[in-house]
Amino acid sequence: MKTFDVELGARSYPIFIGRELLGQSELLAPYIAGHQVLVVSNETVAPLYLEQLKMALEGFEYESVILPDGEQYKTLEYLNTIFDGLLKARCGRDVTLIALGGGVVGDMTGFAAASYQRGVNFIQIPTTVLAQVDSSVGGKTGVNHPLGKNMIGAFHQPQAVLVDTLVLATLDDRQLSAGIAEVIKYGLISDEPFFCWLEENMPRLLARDDEALIYAIERSCRNKAEIVAQDEKESGVRALLNLGHTFGHAIEAGMGYGKWLHGEAVAVGTCIAADLSRRQGWIDDAAVARIIALTRAANLPTQAPSELSVAKFNELMAVDKKVKAGKLRLILLKGIGKAVVSGDFDGDLMNASIDAYRES
Amino acid sequence: MKTFDVELGARSYPIFIGRELLGQSELLAPYIAGHQVLVVSNETVAPLYLEQLKMALEGFEYESVILPDGEQYKTLEYLNTIFDGLLKARCGRDVTLIALGGGVVGDMTGFAAASYQRGVNFIQIPTTVLAQVDSSVGGKTGVNHPLGKNMIGAFHQPQAVLVDTLVLATLDDRQLSAGIAEVIKYGLISDEPFFCWLEENMPRLLARDDEALIYAIERSCRNKAEIVAQDEKESGVRALLNLGHTFGHAIEAGMGYGKWLHGEAVAVGTCIAADLSRRQGWIDDAAVARIIALTRAANLPTQAPSELSVAKFNELMAVDKKVKAGKLRLILLKGIGKAVVSGDFDGDLMNASIDAYRES
Repeated sequence: MKTFDVELGARSYPIFIGRELLGQSELLAPYIAGHQVLVVSNETVAPLYLEQLKMALEGFEYESVILPDGEQYKTLEYLNTIFDGLLKARCGRDVTLIALGGGVVGDMTGFAAASYQRGVNFIQIPTTVLAQVDSSVGGKTGVNHPLGKNMIGAFHQPQAVLVDTLVLATLDDRQLSAGIAEVIKYGLISDEPFFCWLEENMPRLLARDDEALIYAIERSCRNKAEIVAQDEKESGVRALLNLGHTFGHAIEAGMGYGKWLHGEAVAVGTCIAADLSRRQGWIDDAAVARIIALTRAANLPTQAPSELSVAKFNELMAVDKKVKAGKLRLILLKGIGKAVVSGDFDGDLMNASIDAYRES
Repeated sequence: MKTFDVELGARSYPIFIGRELLGQSELLAPYIAGHQVLVVSNETVAPLYLEQLKMALEGFEYESVILPDGEQYKTLEYLNTIFDGLLKARCGRDVTLIALGGGVVGDMTGFAAASYQRGVNFIQIPTTVLAQVDSSVGGKTGVNHPLGKNMIGAFHQPQAVLVDTLVLATLDDRQLSAGIAEVIKYGLISDEPFFCWLEENMPRLLARDDEALIYAIERSCRNKAEIVAQDEKESGVRALLNLGHTFGHAIEAGMGYGKWLHGEAVAVGTCIAADLSRRQGWIDDAAVARIIALTRAANLPTQAPSELSVAKFNELMAVDKKVKAGKLRLILLKGIGKAVVSGDFDGDLMNASIDAYRES
C-alpha cells in the first residue's frame, strides 16, 4: 500500500492506494470520530461492494443511502435524499459520511457533508479511475444545475481517501477510458515525463495491469495534490486542473447530463484546447498530433457531437466558473507539460478550433 | 451612524447601524468587488424598499430574485430559485448577492452565496429586528428540512451588514416583538445590565423610539459579535447563542414552519430553559419571574401550544445540532447574564418544565 498526504495545514489528509483496502476496518476507524456512519453509494456499486464495507464498519451505528447511477442524478433533489437519510437516522454533528462510488457519489456526499448541520466529516472511497485520480482529491464538492455543471457546491476536504484498485476489476471499459482522460490531463498540465510514460504504457492501463494502474493513479494524485496544496480555493494555479473542462462541461450540459461521461467530454475538450493553442502559435503540429494519438490510444473520443453548434458552445461556456469580469478564461498549452490560464486568446480562433473538433 | 467590526481575522466585516442607510450607494459600493449584483428579497419587503436599493446600485449590472414571505419557504426548493436567477443572469464568481429582508431571506441568500460556484460575496441588509440583531451577524446560513430547522447550511461571512432602522417603521407588531425575543436573549446570556435596561425601556422599544431601537440593536450586535469572534464555527461558547432555541426549534418544526415566528418560539423556549434551570436549583423563583415578566412585557408568548406533547418535543429535539454522542445538551441559566451549555440536567425535570409551559 502507498500512502501520502494532501498538505492543507489543519485540513491535511492522507490518501491510501493499494489492493483490497475496502474491507480493512483498521484503515477506516481512525478517521471516524463519532459513533454514527452513513455510507452513500449508488445502484451499480452498492450490490458489488457495500456489504464488504459494512462489515468493516462493525461496531458503528450504520446507515446507507443508495442513489441512482449517473450524472443526471447529481442534482439538489437527489442531494436531499442524503439529508433525508441523515435526519431519519437522527445523525448528529459527529456523524461521518462515507462516499463509496464514482465522481458523482463523491461530489454529492462531499457537498452533503459540507452542508449537513453546516459541516460534518467524510471519507472518500472512489470506485472509478476518474474519481480516484480527480474528484476524490482536493475537496471540490457539489451538484449540477440545468444551466451549468458543478455550479452549486463547497470546498470541503475529506478526512481520508481510500483508493482500492481491486474495485476497478468491475469497472466497464468506457468508464476506465473516461478516467484515463483525467490521467492524461496531469501529464499535459505539468508532467511531461508522465505523458511520455503514458504513451508507452497505455495498453497496460487498458488491460488493467495492477502495477501500471497503481503507478498512474498515485502519480496523478500526487500531481493534483501538489497543485491543490498551492491554491486550495482556486484563486490561481488550481484553475489549471480545468484543462479541457470548459469545453467539456459545455458538451456534458449541452447533450444532457449522463449522455457523455465526464472524462469523454474532457478528452474532446482537451483536443480543442490543444488545437486552439496551436492556432495561437503556442505549440506545434507535432504536439497536437501526440495528444490526439494518446487520446485515441485510450479509446477516447476526439470530436464533439455535431448537434452542438459553435454558438451553443459559446452560450454554455458563458457561465463557466473561470469567467472573470465578463471575460472567459481558458486553460491552454504552451507545450506538453506546460499549461497556462489565459484570457488572452482570439475568439475567432477558439470558434475555429471548436468547429474543427465537431463531428461533421 | 454607528459602525463596528465583527472581528474574524481575514473574514472580518463591518456593521453599519443608523437611519436611512438603504439608499446610500457610497456605503454599499466599497463592498461590491465585481460588476454584477443580485438582490434577493421577498414579496413583502420588495414593494417597500427594493426600488430605493436598486437606485443605490446604479452602475452595476443588476438582477433580483423575489421569494415568497415566510419560514415555510426556507427550503432547498426555493433556494434553487436563487441559483436559477444567478445562472439565467450568467453571474460569475465575482457576483455580489445582497439580502434585503428578514432572517429567512438573509439565511437563504447567505447559503446561496456560500454555494454558488462554491462561494461568492454577499451583503446583508436585514429588515426585521430579529435579522438585525441575530441572523445578520455571525455567518450562519442555511435552509430548513422537514425534519429539522437549519439542518442544511454553511458558515459564510458577509462582506458588510447595513442595519437601517427606518425600515422598522413598516414592520408589524408581531414581528417587532419576535425580534425583541432575541434581544432579551443577549441580556440573559452574558449582559445583566442590558437585561435591566430592557426591563426599564421595553415600552420605548415597542413604541419604536428610534434612539432606544438603535441602542438595543447595537448592544445586541456587539454581544453577538463578541461571542462569534471567540468561536466562529460553534465548537464551544457560540452554542450559548442558542438559549431557548432547542425548545423553540421543536415548536417551529412541530407546528409547521411559518405558523409560529422564530422569535415567538424562542421566547417560549427561553421560559422553559429558565424554569428547568430553577428546577435544577441553579436560579431562584425571582429570576424566573423577571424573565417571564419581561417576555410578557414584550407581548411575547410564554407557553407552547397544547397540541405539542412532551413526547413530541423529545422526538423533535433528538436531531438538535447540539446533540453530542447521542446526548442532548441545552443552554441553561446559572443567573441572569450567566448562560451555560450543559448536558448535565435531569431529563424528568426537563419534561416537567416543558409540560409546565404548555397551554392547558
